[in-house]
Amino acid sequence: MNTKQYKLLSTITYPSDLRRLSVDQLPQVCNELRAFLIDELSRNPGHFASSLGVVELTVALHYVFDTPEDRIVWDVGHQAYGHKILTGRREQFHTNRHLGGIKPFPSPAESEYDASTCGHASVSISTALGMAVAAKKQGSKRHVVAVIGDGAMSGGLAFEGLNNAGYIPNNMLIILNDNDMSIDHAVGGMNNYLNRLHTSITYNHLRNEAARKLSSWGWLNEEGKKRIIRLNNSIKSFVHKRHNIFEGIDIRYFGPQDGHDVIELVRTLRNIKDMSGPRLLHILTEKGFGYKPAMDDPTTFHAPGCFDPKTGERAGANAGSKNTPPRYQDVFGETLLEMARLNKRIIGVTPAMPTGCSMNIMMHEIPDRCFDVGIAEGHAVTFSAGMAADGLIPVCNIYSNFAQRAYDNIIHDVAISRLHVVLCLDRAGLVGEDGPTHHGVFDLVSLRAVPNLTIASPMNEAELRRLMYTAIERQDGPFVIRYPRGNGVMPDWRCPLEAVETGTGRCISSGRGQQGKEPDTVVLSLGPLGNVVAEAIKELEEKDEGTPLPAHYDMRFLKPLDESIMEKVARNYDNIITVEDGARNGGFGSAVLEWLSDHGYSKHVRRLGIPDNFVEHGKPAELYHIVGLDKEGILQAITGMQGIIGE
Amino acid sequence: MNTKQYKLLSTITYPSDLRRLSVDQLPQVCNELRAFLIDELSRNPGHFASSLGVVELTVALHYVFDTPEDRIVWDVGHQAYGHKILTGRREQFHTNRHLGGIKPFPSPAESEYDASTCGHASVSISTALGMAVAAKKQGSKRHVVAVIGDGAMSGGLAFEGLNNAGYIPNNMLIILNDNDMSIDHAVGGMNNYLNRLHTSITYNHLRNEAARKLSSWGWLNEEGKKRIIRLNNSIKSFVHKRHNIFEGIDIRYFGPQDGHDVIELVRTLRNIKDMSGPRLLHILTEKGFGYKPAMDDPTTFHAPGCFDPKTGERAGANAGSKNTPPRYQDVFGETLLEMARLNKRIIGVTPAMPTGCSMNIMMHEIPDRCFDVGIAEGHAVTFSAGMAADGLIPVCNIYSNFAQRAYDNIIHDVAISRLHVVLCLDRAGLVGEDGPTHHGVFDLVSLRAVPNLTIASPMNEAELRRLMYTAIERQDGPFVIRYPRGNGVMPDWRCPLEAVETGTGRCISSGRGQQGKEPDTVVLSLGPLGNVVAEAIKELEEKDEGTPLPAHYDMRFLKPLDESIMEKVARNYDNIITVEDGARNGGFGSAVLEWLSDHGYSKHVRRLGIPDNFVEHGKPAELYHIVGLDKEGILQAITGMQGIIGE
Repeated sequence: MNTKQYKLLSTITYPSDLRRLSVDQLPQVCNELRAFLIDELSRNPGHFASSLGVVELTVALHYVFDTPEDRIVWDVGHQAYGHKILTGRREQFHTNRHLGGIKPFPSPAESEYDASTCGHASVSISTALGMAVAAKKQGSKRHVVAVIGDGAMSGGLAFEGLNNAGYIPNNMLIILNDNDMSIDHAVGGMNNYLNRLHTSITYNHLRNEAARKLSSWGWLNEEGKKRIIRLNNSIKSFVHKRHNIFEGIDIRYFGPQDGHDVIELVRTLRNIKDMSGPRLLHILTEKGFGYKPAMDDPTTFHAPGCFDPKTGERAGANAGSKNTPPRYQDVFGETLLEMARLNKRIIGVTPAMPTGCSMNIMMHEIPDRCFDVGIAEGHAVTFSAGMAADGLIPVCNIYSNFAQRAYDNIIHDVAISRLHVVLCLDRAGLVGEDGPTHHGVFDLVSLRAVPNLTIASPMNEAELRRLMYTAIERQDGPFVIRYPRGNGVMPDWRCPLEAVETGTGRCISSGRGQQGKEPDTVVLSLGPLGNVVAEAIKELEEKDEGTPLPAHYDMRFLKPLDESIMEKVARNYDNIITVEDGARNGGFGSAVLEWLSDHGYSKHVRRLGIPDNFVEHGKPAELYHIVGLDKEGILQAITGMQGIIGE
Repeated sequence: MNTKQYKLLSTITYPSDLRRLSVDQLPQVCNELRAFLIDELSRNPGHFASSLGVVELTVALHYVFDTPEDRIVWDVGHQAYGHKILTGRREQFHTNRHLGGIKPFPSPAESEYDASTCGHASVSISTALGMAVAAKKQGSKRHVVAVIGDGAMSGGLAFEGLNNAGYIPNNMLIILNDNDMSIDHAVGGMNNYLNRLHTSITYNHLRNEAARKLSSWGWLNEEGKKRIIRLNNSIKSFVHKRHNIFEGIDIRYFGPQDGHDVIELVRTLRNIKDMSGPRLLHILTEKGFGYKPAMDDPTTFHAPGCFDPKTGERAGANAGSKNTPPRYQDVFGETLLEMARLNKRIIGVTPAMPTGCSMNIMMHEIPDRCFDVGIAEGHAVTFSAGMAADGLIPVCNIYSNFAQRAYDNIIHDVAISRLHVVLCLDRAGLVGEDGPTHHGVFDLVSLRAVPNLTIASPMNEAELRRLMYTAIERQDGPFVIRYPRGNGVMPDWRCPLEAVETGTGRCISSGRGQQGKEPDTVVLSLGPLGNVVAEAIKELEEKDEGTPLPAHYDMRFLKPLDESIMEKVARNYDNIITVEDGARNGGFGSAVLEWLSDHGYSKHVRRLGIPDNFVEHGKPAELYHIVGLDKEGILQAITGMQGIIGE
């Protein structure tokens, strides 16, 4: 590390080093930490604007609290890069999000400073409350701090935690980091409420400015300054009480306070640190603070990829050419708009991911038929159910891993009543660098068990379009379409909107056996891995004219399974390989086993899928290689299978 | 129907009949409806106290609103009996909860007056918001009303709905039915908050009394009375604004108001019915109102079984004798207390079900180590994770069907970090009369896919104790134990607390083949249905000495599967029957198929389990018969299987 550029930061390996500095040095630490973040992230992409926004808070927390003995529970860990850098991981930070490198989110497995696993939003209050209760039960004086953003505050779990925190005896401190953003702008009544609380920040600033001036002119000593601030705090508190939600549920409220004034933050944290009972400190920050391009466009700079630290120009931002296949999310977004133009009953619903799932495309043209409901996956589904019950056709897009939060809503509110909700699960399969909290691998299994659901996964962009069309225009019950993160395979993807028959797959290639015989092996794939299967078979084909090739079907529907393909498969092949980008336990491969068993067939079946362990972070290609779902793994499975009979 | 006793009620088949009456007649309708409910439910058990508490609200809603065109969305439908009786189902009401009879909860499949399926709490606001948006989009003037209890208000979903309702343009009316109860007493900061709002009811009563007196003395005409009420309302509203959470998130607040004064309710509802924007009317009711035994003990009278309508004495309340096997829930409750006495790290957590899961046994003796967190299943799990992270051993008890709401919390907060949370899922399998929203049939499948979980289901009470002991004292990772509603099979259940080896099953009987040969068939069961299998085999055995008998293993663990039993099974038997009280798709039977396939075995496998449709309500025995999981069904499977080889 450049000790000239990072004069103070380079001396901080652990928070104990930070705590040796004087308060006056902290602004400098913040500047250096911010510069380091900008420099590192411009080269090694990751989540960006969130961590910039909490630089001062991060420094103040580790300065005031005795970490790791005191617990800091981050909510959505993508804001925790500064935390990682100050807690022993500065030198490894360039490996952030790389295979085998620093994990994308805090993880107790990585560092004792990481109090909890936190890849999902709205979790911190519940976790911290558990820790605060544990401290109390164990007679420990340990402090527990939850740091939650205003976006995450719209999640029901955060409210459940808050509601319980006001009731169970505990000394937890909640920091509400209010930047009016989750990834896109935060929405909801709570957010409007917080906005109104903001207005007083002007007053707060004035007060602080006045105190500072008086003090710098020597007219006010430190004690006098404190006294003024205390008096002002109680006035402010009184003013706010009129409307204070948190005090309403017995959580003492402090703030709002400028979250970028590290010295003030330290002062406040010290003041309220040892108070008893649950408290909430409301701070105002700006996502991307200190880096103009990010402040101007925090949504883009949430995770900008590589960029020029001087100008903010993003590498590859305009790189997509005519020959690059589109992202699946954009095919979803464009197709949704295309269909919504024709069918007025279509409504878009997203829990805080309009940009992430590209529903912003429809939102831009037909804003009043799109609802961003905030980080609230359960509500997104049940709200959709309500609309469907009265004749609209909601298309609700949720990332596969976050749809785990709506499992009961899908069962109770959609499936039992067979409502026509179209559930599009983006980011299905292994998502890559975001790691185990973000892989979408449990949807196929958990939803397959739910009656009345139709479940499909497209092999490519055209299939996604056809499935969307089928789900919206040809179905009147619940329909789940799950597809992956990233780009597809078809530069020319704008095929006509046509329906497919529900519960039917497609023959991709019919294979060839040895010496003119029929092939003995078939590959059944579900979803985009079908393309990898096709590549693998092509490679075999190109190798040698005599090499046997398996037949290949894209099953397209997990539920209902294509009975006619299954019959054909059962009659014609001895060896079956199933390929899916979901959990092997109970997934598509098991559905095939079940069908064979129920119909009295006995075959060699090799199920390729996600194994029964949490897959770590890394590039998608690296991860699919590790789990044996790349071309190599599939080739191995094919040749191994064909070998069985060859012997 | 006795037209003398039910002079008005007998004339009401549909709400349109009700709406023909004058307002003055409504108290009489309420009295009759209440008497009818008491009479019916004393003979035909069901949910009781909740419906009694909302008699006036039910009558007022159907009187003021144009149902079914206007939508009433009930939250947790066990309060909706009055609603069912007033909406065409009076004469069939004696079939309530019976197989083929009236459904236990509102269901659009049963009546157009039932706007939504509502067996789970906290759902109504999201659903109603969807309907309100649909009405707006369709240019309909239809009113949408959500009725939610204060207990349900602690659920995160309710907050997500509220938060969104304050933000999206809509004209929904929310009725907050505040009775300080869910099933047990409601808890949480929100509840304390509501309690403080109550205090003004005294003031409210006085005001109403005064107005009534003035009016009855002829000193105040109707218009004058209205004016006074309006003035008072605005004063009250101003007084409350200081603290009003709902107005904080942009939902207009009215109340609190006496929920048992039907005439006042009608007046208020008429006043606020056509206002625009989201509104909340806070009414105060008493669970069991009008029936003293229920008012005195609303928890017992939540679902009291049969009782003497005159005295409130419950039939069979003291019927349990020494020879009756205990309820599984009591074995859980007693064993938890027994272990908690010895191990101070054990903490009990329940989301609003202390009585239902019998955690009240521990709560009674060690209240400070039990947490009722309110209707908040997600929080219950994540809060447990926080405690486990800091060294406590939380035993979190959730009904299997409600654990669907904590799926993501189990994955993200418990499993990824391998935290030592013991998750006890009560009410697993088919629960009977509560029907499809309450059957616990998705837990095995959905959790089996999650890495790091140990999943077990005891065959009987002693096994439940052993599994609890194992999970708490011999494990340091997450452990799921699922067991059914109702009574077990062992009058003498207090066996010593001993550990079992994780991932091992038990041989129950080794069977016998034809003519001295080894048996060709084996039954592998998971959980309490093992007892039915044993009975079935016993019946075969008693039939004829020559009848072949299958071997029988109680697998005990779904995950990990007992490899040594599986090896033995694979080597020794041609036919395998699997038996489980969970979904067939992807469940225990599929785990067996997977193991066989992965290890290269090919067998005849018959998987008995819950089929791929929602099972309706009825007595558990009736339902298990329908799905082929009673003795008869299992016998059929056994003889059918043995037949395969016999041929």
